[in-house]
Amino acid sequence: MSDLSWKTSITKIGPNEVRLRGYRVDELMGQISFSQGIYLAIMGDLPEESVLIMLDAILVSSLDHGASPPSALVARTAASTGASLNSAVAAGLLSINRYHGGAVYDCMAILSNGIERTVSSDSDMDDIASQIVAEFRAEKKRIAGLGHRLHSEDPRTFKLFSLAEELDIDGAGVDMIRALQSAIAADGKTLPINVDGAIAALLVDLDIPQEFANAFFSMARVPGLVAHVVEEQTRERPMRRIHPTDHTYDGPSDRSI
Amino acid sequence: MSDLSWKTSITKIGPNEVRLRGYRVDELMGQISFSQGIYLAIMGDLPEESVLIMLDAILVSSLDHGASPPSALVARTAASTGASLNSAVAAGLLSINRYHGGAVYDCMAILSNGIERTVSSDSDMDDIASQIVAEFRAEKKRIAGLGHRLHSEDPRTFKLFSLAEELDIDGAGVDMIRALQSAIAADGKTLPINVDGAIAALLVDLDIPQEFANAFFSMARVPGLVAHVVEEQTRERPMRRIHPTDHTYDGPSDRSI
Amino acid sequence: MSDLSWKTSITKIGPNEVRLRGYRVDELMGQISFSQGIYLAIMGDLPEESVLIMLDAILVSSLDHGASPPSALVARTAASTGASLNSAVAAGLLSINRYHGGAVYDCMAILSNGIERTVSSDSDMDDIASQIVAEFRAEKKRIAGLGHRLHSEDPRTFKLFSLAEELDIDGAGVDMIRALQSAIAADGKTLPINVDGAIAALLVDLDIPQEFANAFFSMARVPGLVAHVVEEQTRERPMRRIHPTDHTYDGPSDRSI
Amino acid sequence: MSDLSWKTSITKIGPNEVRLRGYRVDELMGQISFSQGIYLAIMGDLPEESVLIMLDAILVSSLDHGASPPSALVARTAASTGASLNSAVAAGLLSINRYHGGAVYDCMAILSNGIERTVSSDSDMDDIASQIVAEFRAEKKRIAGLGHRLHSEDPRTFKLFSLAEELDIDGAGVDMIRALQSAIAADGKTLPINVDGAIAALLVDLDIPQEFANAFFSMARVPGLVAHVVEEQTRERPMRRIHPTDHTYDGPSDRSI
Repeated sequence: MSDLSWKTSITKIGPNEVRLRGYRVDELMGQISFSQGIYLAIMGDLPEESVLIMLDAILVSSLDHGASPPSALVARTAASTGASLNSAVAAGLLSINRYHGGAVYDCMAILSNGIERTVSSDSDMDDIASQIVAEFRAEKKRIAGLGHRLHSEDPRTFKLFSLAEELDIDGAGVDMIRALQSAIAADGKTLPINVDGAIAALLVDLDIPQEFANAFFSMARVPGLVAHVVEEQTRERPMRRIHPTDHTYDGPSDRSI
Repeated sequence: MSDLSWKTSITKIGPNEVRLRGYRVDELMGQISFSQGIYLAIMGDLPEESVLIMLDAILVSSLDHGASPPSALVARTAASTGASLNSAVAAGLLSINRYHGGAVYDCMAILSNGIERTVSSDSDMDDIASQIVAEFRAEKKRIAGLGHRLHSEDPRTFKLFSLAEELDIDGAGVDMIRALQSAIAADGKTLPINVDGAIAALLVDLDIPQEFANAFFSMARVPGLVAHVVEEQTRERPMRRIHPTDHTYDGPSDRSI
Repeated sequence: MSDLSWKTSITKIGPNEVRLRGYRVDELMGQISFSQGIYLAIMGDLPEESVLIMLDAILVSSLDHGASPPSALVARTAASTGASLNSAVAAGLLSINRYHGGAVYDCMAILSNGIERTVSSDSDMDDIASQIVAEFRAEKKRIAGLGHRLHSEDPRTFKLFSLAEELDIDGAGVDMIRALQSAIAADGKTLPINVDGAIAALLVDLDIPQEFANAFFSMARVPGLVAHVVEEQTRERPMRRIHPTDHTYDGPSDRSI
Repeated sequence: MSDLSWKTSITKIGPNEVRLRGYRVDELMGQISFSQGIYLAIMGDLPEESVLIMLDAILVSSLDHGASPPSALVARTAASTGASLNSAVAAGLLSINRYHGGAVYDCMAILSNGIERTVSSDSDMDDIASQIVAEFRAEKKRIAGLGHRLHSEDPRTFKLFSLAEELDIDGAGVDMIRALQSAIAADGKTLPINVDGAIAALLVDLDIPQEFANAFFSMARVPGLVAHVVEEQTRERPMRRIHPTDHTYDGPSDRSI
């Protein structure tokens, strides 16, 4: 054993045996869904049923948001120059940052801080929320997770929160972001909780560490980026100019499950 | 409408409404799993039950393969220099290519070609397989999807094929890769069908276009890369030397569902 | 020495000593230019004077081509989401492929093949050029290195070729691409030699291996991408919609050295 | 002109005319070196002679540092899986961050802050340096730009500083980093100024904005990464295990210009 020797707790590999967090992968196959496997891979254990439902809803909520988001435009532009599928998707991932898809991390930090201040100071959560809003206003910063340039009431947020209520998962995270929304409203500004904010609140309530914050959006959006890259490769000519907004939808008509 | 105007059939976005392939995303949330959503995003329709089970098994099979694969080493090395989660995962994705994870595309091409030659020439599939093996040997090329440096019998392949049989999904794709394996054996060489080869055979039998071949491995491996990046960030010091093989597993003990 | 031990011929590192291809880096500093260092790093020896002049001209020719190329748009879009400088430049690099900046490799292959056929068949280069043009037409493929969507006569090509003539560097590579241009013209179509084609011809005449073909464009364009990323970061607001063509230049007025 | 219309001050493109910062690129070609072009592209004007010599020295200093740096290992690992040259180099770039090559930015910030505090408080620079060292020690943070795991006296730093002195370029930046080094020494710890720290000091003295800090290392290292990727592609078999330290140099013998 050299001094470069190291340890990992994710997967054990031996001849004809692959064990993810202790479970034989071939035993898991056919018995668990992909999202159960995702939770197992990153959190180390299989999720409880209610957590799984919430996780699926979070991942489905972020699959795609059309052709305007920077990550979709970048993935399509790279594909248009002849990039491989993986390279184009990687370029798309590099366009998921603080201002696009990356607000979950910042929002989780704000919510955790607010919750901690509420608990440690034995204050009312609404008072802490007002303080936080005042602090951000003083620094002329926006509170991540609130506001959307298109949706005045994001239907995905609404659904995430009703599900969380049904499943009895909502806790201090959801309360805190709602308190922030109210404090902003008391300030005269109506801002919707966007899907990043809703996910941040739920990750707090699911006890998922902040390090994984941005992973959920990214894992969920990769299949959307794949769809865009393959559509670009199969439907468009190479090296076209890709207009960021002047595109229309011509897929399946409105339908219901 | 300018001459740069274009169309997309993936997602329709309007104020307070996001529709993926025609379905309201907030209606899908809570009703479908992430893997159903993935299939919908890339294929355009929800999968049948048996297809879904197969899809989950394929995605679970490829979640992670420990710390030795180049994609894991690259993602960890990037993370070790201070890369963001997304940048580190993107670097990992850039290390998934022909020789690692990217064999599905090449293998699908070989299988589709073999099936077409069998059908169009009205020949026996075994004869076509022998011809293909001879052609590759003449060009000193390896047939993608066969052989593994560690597993003499990949347990994931075994499980994918038994599930496919149970679900009555296995068809010409599975037959063709087995015919190739036999032809190589007749040639005196025993090679296992690796997990890339098994996935390629099943994607052929699921009528999934070859353009998506490498997407399944990539989509499945992204959560594994996330787990490695966060483990690196939280467990190791920055800028360590990362040995490619001298690491041991210290996670949960062997267990069963 | 383990069985993983390997060798490299680029740089030797010891305590307080860094030697690039045998030369102490601190001796090189102050004595050679960056382009001399580039040639040394990739080719293994310092360039002759005429080669250096040609190399500088090639690299200067490809520094930037405005905000419309996909690599610039992608780098700016990534930057606009909050990507770090390196991540944004990396995303730009991922958008340099066959259809944008990557034609040098394909063109070098065509030129080398044409030269080889001319030499081995003892034919006239013009006849071989006509054959190649006919072959590409039969397969409905374009010959890389010829044609430009904007420039009918690329001033950079003209300058590269006059410099090569002055420096007595032009040889079979330049002859071959001109023969191809003439063969296409005889076919009734006037196509300019674009800057990719000119660089390909000169790399052939400079005996630079084809593996490096696309490196020259990429190395040269990285500073251009840096300029775009920093301009985006310092001049624009985050998450703006970036129109691919509707932009105008407002930098320094036309001037001359 | 739509509301998406925007402006850029880098390059003006017209039919048969490309102007970088006002100069016709074909006029620049043959008259300026690549490093002059780099300075023009990012700073907007051609550099003075002494600045150019310094710039070349900075870029040459960072061309390569052997096969152990994470960026080289990542680029080689990606190449080993079959990545294209550009994708492998992009993966390498994604491994240049705070802990590898990215210290220039942090160090520039510390130096600028120290200079500002010295000027505005009318204090002695050595006192400010001692304060800064105490502040970092209190927060248990390292000062970027000082210390190297291999070199106790980095020969590249020595050469950069002697050149700067000769060219009369050294100013408050160089003074400040030396003051920090002395303050640390007074604290009982001998740390060399590493090449990142030296470059940071010189960029401060050259009035180059901090936004470009990390660009110099990245632009300089790209050719080194190209050399590693092509060496990997042409000398090694695909998918080998790449040991991070167990490699030896077998290139040209020690030599002098």
